[in-house]
Amino acid sequence: MDELPGTLGTSASLSLRLGQAIFCIASLLFMCLDVQFYSYTAFCFLVTIMGLMIPWSLTLALVDAYSVFVKRPSRQPGIMSIVVVGDWVLSFLSLAAACSTASVTELLIASGGSFCGTKLCSRYQLSAAMTFLSWFLSIASSLFNLWLLPSL
Amino acid sequence: MDELPGTLGTSASLSLRLGQAIFCIASLLFMCLDVQFYSYTAFCFLVTIMGLMIPWSLTLALVDAYSVFVKRPSRQPGIMSIVVVGDWVLSFLSLAAACSTASVTELLIASGGSFCGTKLCSRYQLSAAMTFLSWFLSIASSLFNLWLLPSL
Repeated sequence: MDELPGTLGTSASLSLRLGQAIFCIASLLFMCLDVQFYSYTAFCFLVTIMGLMIPWSLTLALVDAYSVFVKRPSRQPGIMSIVVVGDWVLSFLSLAAACSTASVTELLIASGGSFCGTKLCSRYQLSAAMTFLSWFLSIASSLFNLWLLPSL
Repeated sequence: MDELPGTLGTSASLSLRLGQAIFCIASLLFMCLDVQFYSYTAFCFLVTIMGLMIPWSLTLALVDAYSVFVKRPSRQPGIMSIVVVGDWVLSFLSLAAACSTASVTELLIASGGSFCGTKLCSRYQLSAAMTFLSWFLSIASSLFNLWLLPSL
């Protein structure tokens, strides 16, 4: 049970965390660069959540990298619970942000493109898609760690 | 462990399921009655998800009621897994629907009220709020049953 792939401290977990961080950063860049995102609440929410998720993913990626390349630390149930709950909450928040962004973008496009040009709208769409991908990886991490929890 | 409140077949679970069904029906009524909801994708999504959640909640409420008032059936791990996964998926979908509806409504209000009158907009808001409440009860059910799963 100690070698279940995807749990904290394995190389699969490291790749999941790096994927999360990359998708979050991509989403943030698509949303923020040269865009007045603060005129819509949903986009501000997305930026806030991405700003929470990036340090979380990078911190856990560092823990995983240390565990893979240097030595495996002991897995305490308390720390694992915090990781599972944190992943859980962040995955819900990122899903909420992704859905809000996607539906607002869809509405902006449907309203005839007077609010955002073709280029800007497609950037919003890309940002929502990246957030969905990071949600997917985050929920995968959470489930793998949750699976390990009862055996600790 | 068999008497953990909130798990399938207890009276707490019955009240959670009834709450879910009531909030879902309220959300659907606020959204559908006298409203042209099909002009926005997010609202159609909400109606679809509520149409899935109502029969699911009512079926499990019936199972709980049978278990509380007649006799307790044996809890098989397979059936419990299906219930946990179903709750899980539906809670994610209802969160997605609630966020989409809330952000689209917020955008419609912010755009000056030309798309929806004050009365209509507040009905959309109420519908989103009801969906959030049903999401909350659904995730509670899912967590209680998940907690029981390893001990079966």
